[in-house]
Amino acid sequence: MADNVKVWQDRRKIAQMITTVENALPGHEEILQDIYKKTGQAYIIGITGPPGAGKSSLTDALSRVYIDMGKRVGVIAIDPTSPFSGGSILGDRIRMNELSTHPQMFIRSMGTRGQLGGLSAATHSAVMVLDACGADILFIETVGVGQSEVEIVKLADTVLMVMVPGLGDDIQTMKAGIMEIGDVFAINKSDLPGADRTKIELEAMLSFLPPKEWRPPVRMVSATEKEGLKELVEAIDEHRTFQEKNKRLEERRKRNVQEALLAILRDKMVARVTSDDRYKRLLEEMVKKEIDPYEAARQLMQK
Amino acid sequence: MADNVKVWQDRRKIAQMITTVENALPGHEEILQDIYKKTGQAYIIGITGPPGAGKSSLTDALSRVYIDMGKRVGVIAIDPTSPFSGGSILGDRIRMNELSTHPQMFIRSMGTRGQLGGLSAATHSAVMVLDACGADILFIETVGVGQSEVEIVKLADTVLMVMVPGLGDDIQTMKAGIMEIGDVFAINKSDLPGADRTKIELEAMLSFLPPKEWRPPVRMVSATEKEGLKELVEAIDEHRTFQEKNKRLEERRKRNVQEALLAILRDKMVARVTSDDRYKRLLEEMVKKEIDPYEAARQLMQK
Repeated sequence: MADNVKVWQDRRKIAQMITTVENALPGHEEILQDIYKKTGQAYIIGITGPPGAGKSSLTDALSRVYIDMGKRVGVIAIDPTSPFSGGSILGDRIRMNELSTHPQMFIRSMGTRGQLGGLSAATHSAVMVLDACGADILFIETVGVGQSEVEIVKLADTVLMVMVPGLGDDIQTMKAGIMEIGDVFAINKSDLPGADRTKIELEAMLSFLPPKEWRPPVRMVSATEKEGLKELVEAIDEHRTFQEKNKRLEERRKRNVQEALLAILRDKMVARVTSDDRYKRLLEEMVKKEIDPYEAARQLMQK
Repeated sequence: MADNVKVWQDRRKIAQMITTVENALPGHEEILQDIYKKTGQAYIIGITGPPGAGKSSLTDALSRVYIDMGKRVGVIAIDPTSPFSGGSILGDRIRMNELSTHPQMFIRSMGTRGQLGGLSAATHSAVMVLDACGADILFIETVGVGQSEVEIVKLADTVLMVMVPGLGDDIQTMKAGIMEIGDVFAINKSDLPGADRTKIELEAMLSFLPPKEWRPPVRMVSATEKEGLKELVEAIDEHRTFQEKNKRLEERRKRNVQEALLAILRDKMVARVTSDDRYKRLLEEMVKKEIDPYEAARQLMQK
């Protein structure tokens, strides 16, 4: 524990480690091999929901609650990125509050890159670094509710789905598609008109899901007014306790380990094949339609 | 051409072929090997944009224009899917118009599955089937503007980005992230208040992009009022001509062929490794933290 505090306070070192692992720079494998044994201590909370739901504000407000409980809190914020330039649109976003420099807090923004597997793998690596460096609570905050965000929040132990009153029909459709990944639901901006109705609609929708042992609770919060936060943290804790009792947490984490292994294997195997002399030649033949992709794959796999 | 017409009219056979390839059922490799040589004839138009922009209506309206020009038109509509159940939410959506049974038209809905690579690969396969079976114009219509949708519309020869007047600030942020993939922009529902302002804002944003040889045009349309459709089709045609002159189309398609090959390789290589006896054992060791993912990957790659 004392050791963890020391590592946690070396912010520059943590930042460097994350930069190295998320960009797969030289030395990233050594870092992950080195820290892997120390992972598994942090509890990971994924925060997702439609744009405009106030996910960042809620992450900040929840972080404050955990900090006041004496916890070390890490936040990994996934930013949308231009798929072509590779730059992070919100990369220079500055969280306008005192939290970002709080000694118990570590906030990191990650741009989404062209490669989907890449983002998931990079997030996974950053989670492992913050976990091994002493985080008690780790938030993974995603921007939207697309397929890639869904992939990422699957890394979490608890998925917190943030809703907001008065979303249109389209959002209702989106909600239906992603509801099943929510373990706990928060209706943020609960002071806005229509909040009660949204809660009723949401609970009605949840009742249509196939019955499971865990029934996702719906909590009303206001991140800006600091209302309902304690109740939301309690709901997250209940989900954690439920999962720990039922070995669900173990299963979830086993699945993540498997995903991590497969991501590494995919990268390594593609790197090996594309460095093969035959690769370029077969690609040319495919463009000329002299050979189809399956035959090209078959030839490349022979060895 | 006569042969194409015959194949195109065998709707049941086309549907079966797509089902086989998109689900990677037995025989899918043979189908793709068989049709691969006949691909490359259709012009592929990707349609994307925020939820609520009216992409489906616009796809239908544009299809009608192309049908009236005597073209055979294929539509692949990507539906959002629950990542857990795997079912397509809008899978039973019925396009309420006469188009779906028009002999020149073939509409296919595809659910997004858990695997991202899988969706992209499945879409690519369906595109190849419709292309080889005689489509002149192929639309790929995506639901949202997330990372996975971006990956999919990259398969297109022209990306049509559909906007709508009066979107909030959040959508502006989304827009900034995905604008660069748009080759042609359409502001749909141009009869709504604020359409002119949206056009001005959009053109201002586009002017901030790094200068390229192709300057994406912005067209006002109303899919429901059937206004501006001809002008939009002309803008798409201009982009096609531009790309054909500059060998851009060739480059784009070469990149797609490469992506298709890599997707197949990833699937095949992961299947080979996970059927390895050592795989399960190494996974258990990873869960117990006796071995890290990189070391496990290294051991699995040895052979």
